[in-house]
Amino acid sequence: MNDSRPQPLHGEPAARVLVAGASGFTGALAAQIVWRHPKLELVAVTSRSDAGTRLDRLYPRYRVPLELTELDLDTLEDIDAAIVAYPHGASAPTVAALRERDLLVADLSADFRLRDMPTYELWYGDHGAPELFGGAVYGLTELYRDALREAKLVAVPGCYPTASVLALAPLAERGLLSDVVIDAKQGVSGAGRGGGDAMHYANMDENAFAYKTEGHRHQPEIEQELAALGGETPVTFVPHLLPLDQGELTSCYARLSEPVSKDEAQALYAERYAGEPFVHAVERPPGLRDVRDSNECHVYVTVTDRGLVLAFSAIDNLWKGASGQAVQCLNLMLGLEETEGLL
Amino acid sequence: MNDSRPQPLHGEPAARVLVAGASGFTGALAAQIVWRHPKLELVAVTSRSDAGTRLDRLYPRYRVPLELTELDLDTLEDIDAAIVAYPHGASAPTVAALRERDLLVADLSADFRLRDMPTYELWYGDHGAPELFGGAVYGLTELYRDALREAKLVAVPGCYPTASVLALAPLAERGLLSDVVIDAKQGVSGAGRGGGDAMHYANMDENAFAYKTEGHRHQPEIEQELAALGGETPVTFVPHLLPLDQGELTSCYARLSEPVSKDEAQALYAERYAGEPFVHAVERPPGLRDVRDSNECHVYVTVTDRGLVLAFSAIDNLWKGASGQAVQCLNLMLGLEETEGLL
Amino acid sequence: MNDSRPQPLHGEPAARVLVAGASGFTGALAAQIVWRHPKLELVAVTSRSDAGTRLDRLYPRYRVPLELTELDLDTLEDIDAAIVAYPHGASAPTVAALRERDLLVADLSADFRLRDMPTYELWYGDHGAPELFGGAVYGLTELYRDALREAKLVAVPGCYPTASVLALAPLAERGLLSDVVIDAKQGVSGAGRGGGDAMHYANMDENAFAYKTEGHRHQPEIEQELAALGGETPVTFVPHLLPLDQGELTSCYARLSEPVSKDEAQALYAERYAGEPFVHAVERPPGLRDVRDSNECHVYVTVTDRGLVLAFSAIDNLWKGASGQAVQCLNLMLGLEETEGLL
Amino acid sequence: MNDSRPQPLHGEPAARVLVAGASGFTGALAAQIVWRHPKLELVAVTSRSDAGTRLDRLYPRYRVPLELTELDLDTLEDIDAAIVAYPHGASAPTVAALRERDLLVADLSADFRLRDMPTYELWYGDHGAPELFGGAVYGLTELYRDALREAKLVAVPGCYPTASVLALAPLAERGLLSDVVIDAKQGVSGAGRGGGDAMHYANMDENAFAYKTEGHRHQPEIEQELAALGGETPVTFVPHLLPLDQGELTSCYARLSEPVSKDEAQALYAERYAGEPFVHAVERPPGLRDVRDSNECHVYVTVTDRGLVLAFSAIDNLWKGASGQAVQCLNLMLGLEETEGLL
Repeated sequence: MNDSRPQPLHGEPAARVLVAGASGFTGALAAQIVWRHPKLELVAVTSRSDAGTRLDRLYPRYRVPLELTELDLDTLEDIDAAIVAYPHGASAPTVAALRERDLLVADLSADFRLRDMPTYELWYGDHGAPELFGGAVYGLTELYRDALREAKLVAVPGCYPTASVLALAPLAERGLLSDVVIDAKQGVSGAGRGGGDAMHYANMDENAFAYKTEGHRHQPEIEQELAALGGETPVTFVPHLLPLDQGELTSCYARLSEPVSKDEAQALYAERYAGEPFVHAVERPPGLRDVRDSNECHVYVTVTDRGLVLAFSAIDNLWKGASGQAVQCLNLMLGLEETEGLL
Repeated sequence: MNDSRPQPLHGEPAARVLVAGASGFTGALAAQIVWRHPKLELVAVTSRSDAGTRLDRLYPRYRVPLELTELDLDTLEDIDAAIVAYPHGASAPTVAALRERDLLVADLSADFRLRDMPTYELWYGDHGAPELFGGAVYGLTELYRDALREAKLVAVPGCYPTASVLALAPLAERGLLSDVVIDAKQGVSGAGRGGGDAMHYANMDENAFAYKTEGHRHQPEIEQELAALGGETPVTFVPHLLPLDQGELTSCYARLSEPVSKDEAQALYAERYAGEPFVHAVERPPGLRDVRDSNECHVYVTVTDRGLVLAFSAIDNLWKGASGQAVQCLNLMLGLEETEGLL
Repeated sequence: MNDSRPQPLHGEPAARVLVAGASGFTGALAAQIVWRHPKLELVAVTSRSDAGTRLDRLYPRYRVPLELTELDLDTLEDIDAAIVAYPHGASAPTVAALRERDLLVADLSADFRLRDMPTYELWYGDHGAPELFGGAVYGLTELYRDALREAKLVAVPGCYPTASVLALAPLAERGLLSDVVIDAKQGVSGAGRGGGDAMHYANMDENAFAYKTEGHRHQPEIEQELAALGGETPVTFVPHLLPLDQGELTSCYARLSEPVSKDEAQALYAERYAGEPFVHAVERPPGLRDVRDSNECHVYVTVTDRGLVLAFSAIDNLWKGASGQAVQCLNLMLGLEETEGLL
Repeated sequence: MNDSRPQPLHGEPAARVLVAGASGFTGALAAQIVWRHPKLELVAVTSRSDAGTRLDRLYPRYRVPLELTELDLDTLEDIDAAIVAYPHGASAPTVAALRERDLLVADLSADFRLRDMPTYELWYGDHGAPELFGGAVYGLTELYRDALREAKLVAVPGCYPTASVLALAPLAERGLLSDVVIDAKQGVSGAGRGGGDAMHYANMDENAFAYKTEGHRHQPEIEQELAALGGETPVTFVPHLLPLDQGELTSCYARLSEPVSKDEAQALYAERYAGEPFVHAVERPPGLRDVRDSNECHVYVTVTDRGLVLAFSAIDNLWKGASGQAVQCLNLMLGLEETEGLL
């Protein structure tokens, strides 16, 4: 393997970055994006389970020649920022320790996404760092760009809320939505490196099915963000698994609180996302191939003859749904160009 | 190739059968099922585009060693029944000609499925045999079993209506449904042998997307059948393509006209389908692998905390959604065991 | 689920059959084939790891409504035959115990395939029932049909030897082969239900690679069988994994000990396999789809301008490469039609 | 869509580049790579069949917002270089016209790869620009780096020769190879945008097969290049199609003209490719996922107990096998860093 950086840094790096939990799917991709980033320096990748292994042995398709080490909180002096890719629950204490040492943190777990503690406890149990709860900025750049420029701790949204909220935001912001149904479809990488028998190729091949039909943790997160936009409404959220690797498609069905024509809806979306570097209002229902291995989100909206609004969004769940979005947030937190390292 | 029948007929065949349009996906599978059927004799397979080719050259995975010929209406004397797998519009005149010669017909096209002519004309244009319009029995065995035993012409339902109506029938029959949304997902075989660039492996691989989001021909067919069950309600139907070959999954979302608990709904489904040989109320959301290459339909129902009903169904679109169902109908029309040749 | 048999037995069953190790891929399919077999009665399915689970919960696409139990050697009185689908090494003692109780046994493991003990020990270690070693008939029906009719214990060949030997047998029988290279490609079901991270969908998707390039256990088995046919020659065997479920393709390259033209080679294959119910000499290189979910083997041979012979074979590794072949053997052992239950 | 360049050019572009034939798979990717290249300016993309369409409508996953136009030879004044992605035969006259206007040309067709006219005519027919035949540098950077720095016309190798020659070059350079068999496996993108029924998803899904078993045009190209390295030897080359999009794996089997141990062979490969930016001698058989969407080639070599050498290589056929390699050549022709725009 080639141990050299893909390209020399342009001058001093804007930040020296740690990726904690780099042996999972999202952590490894975050490491890869930082490794290639022209303004960031990747200084460490950590993992409990795979310490001692070089990351490019675990993920040959990424080219990060660093050895995974155990996280040592006493050796963080020269590190400016961290992307944390730990499981829910496990993340909060580490995030607290990193914040104590004044690192900027982009957290990929669910631990700081919700802003209501009872709701958190209902879905996830006890919180590991309650003193920080409510103190993170929600890392959906398209909604919280200004706050993110000042943020020290960012809760990067889950892949399902990212795709769902971006599909519905223009209508939610106008208070037009009611009775939202989200039928979400995702590739197997969303289930992470584990998954056991269910994720065996011989089980997922030529297969597709709904899961968690009795309730999914991302539902309150989606409702929270739609409400924050001015669109308080119950959301029914049903995820499905598809026989593919990376990609997430949401198909959203909602009633409109006042009549909107198809042309008006499409104009609204085009205008809302006109200046966005990664979100594009497209002219036909988006496909997962269109956004694979990119930080893009493609959104399409239409209105049926009977006045139901249909909104579709496609993202790469590992990129815009996790690691790409984490770097997008980090760029803003560091005062860099939002798109740096992501195009 | 082996030219012999898979197994000797048990005595005299109950019928000598023609498959017209056997070079497409559904026609070829219909030929294969009839070929292996212990009580039917496959006497001819026809195709305009591929006449002169042996069917097992075109579809090696089926084992039908007959040569495709052009349909000749003057040589049908000894033929008792036909499965017609022509495109919509092209089917009606041929069906009329076969009926004139007194063949029993199971028609896989849409030409005789709708019972309201203006609706037909709106979605399909002029009808090719208006004198027969309205005279077919709708070939969903689980709803029209008795009528099918007397039928001379059967309109075999499309794959989407089959999966959708079976997912919703137990509730529709009780008049419980309102505002139905159907998010349907299907493999590429549903698009047929054509399809051009869009069906190229390099386009569908790792892809998924909605299509016909502005209206799909199967919507009026689904509404017609739900209404016939006593559940007149508007249906929003959105189909999606998945990167797999055979299989169709519907995820149905509906409001209930009166409260029904999850347990009640599941009991209702279990009871409704208890005696059905091919439809099974299962205990978790069904997967496409569970029903691939079979005539089965697996159905799962649940009710959310907020009182929305969710119903899921999985079928193989080529089997229960087309050719398997055609033979199921033919078995009834001929007085045979309904499951003969389909297990 | 439907608990009834797919079709009534035609009279008394020819044998009551046990499938031991029915929770793995090959055991489960063997159970399914016996379950549907018109002359066999499936009386028990056993599994250590999944005892207590109904087989159709573990494998919904098969329709076997029996509960898996632990194997109890004291309850075999009414059982006539067993298919054993245990791992290598674990199989021999159980096979010995079943033979003691006079059951006919078709063993899917490697324990009785080799006929030279030092070779066995080199590749597999100590043997668990040395008194039976060498006493099995090799279950490749096309080569050992007569012996199989008398056999009490059959060593069903591995999938790679099945496909390889069938691809080369017509030339080996004439002593024409030398310096054989076999490039074999197989879907992930060949790796079994385990496999860990490597078999995760997100790892195998869009992937393909060689493995065991420094030596594979099937190489001595292939050499043994080619030698038995009169074609003693060194074999280089390299397996590859493909991103698909079921199917195995071998591409064989060999020098000819005396010149044979392409036409002569093709005539030789056509003649050799003319009467075989499952092996077909086809007219172009076979594809895996042609044989999926069937007990067929398609073989194609050609000779290059420079006199190298190329032979290709395609099988379904779970059917002709394991469970289908086991039932094919059992049919012969029981005096049934060889194809019974397999078409 | 976003019409802006992914990143501002760093100063004046080193060259203004045309991609001719940009509506096919390799042309479109070449356009994408040039579009993102920090030192090149993509000034035009041409296509006869799709003129008038924006390239990002045809290939949404690439982000090139330019409209396809018909190639007009009278408007090339300010253009410095062209990548030509035409079919074989069609390319030569256009290449000649571009060279007349003094553009640097990287040609992706086979028209200038062979250096022996009778061999060309045997496999491809009449040549469209015989005056240029033999005048191109073969664009395999790892073998012809110095010549490429001076080249005006480069014949970019086919994907199969790229993977095959890189797998075997270290041994060929020492004159160690004899009797080479190459079993090559490729995803469907290698067949191009056409392909008809055979490339339909429903045909390739779960499929794999050999093709052109009676001779493939890439065989003489591979033999030419191995001979140029000092390893004249007959090559048997058999390509296979796999159910995946991008990727090509070669498994090469050869006899050694003198004994070489496994360790010696691996040391030889490690040394030969130590300084190469894109070719890596890896420690286990490479997988296609490792190199997907990259310009890398991973190579693994081993020697069997019986002295046969096995060499494996994996590339992305669209990148290192076509468009990436074209830009790699262009970088050298223009005096740029070889890896520019390709990491």
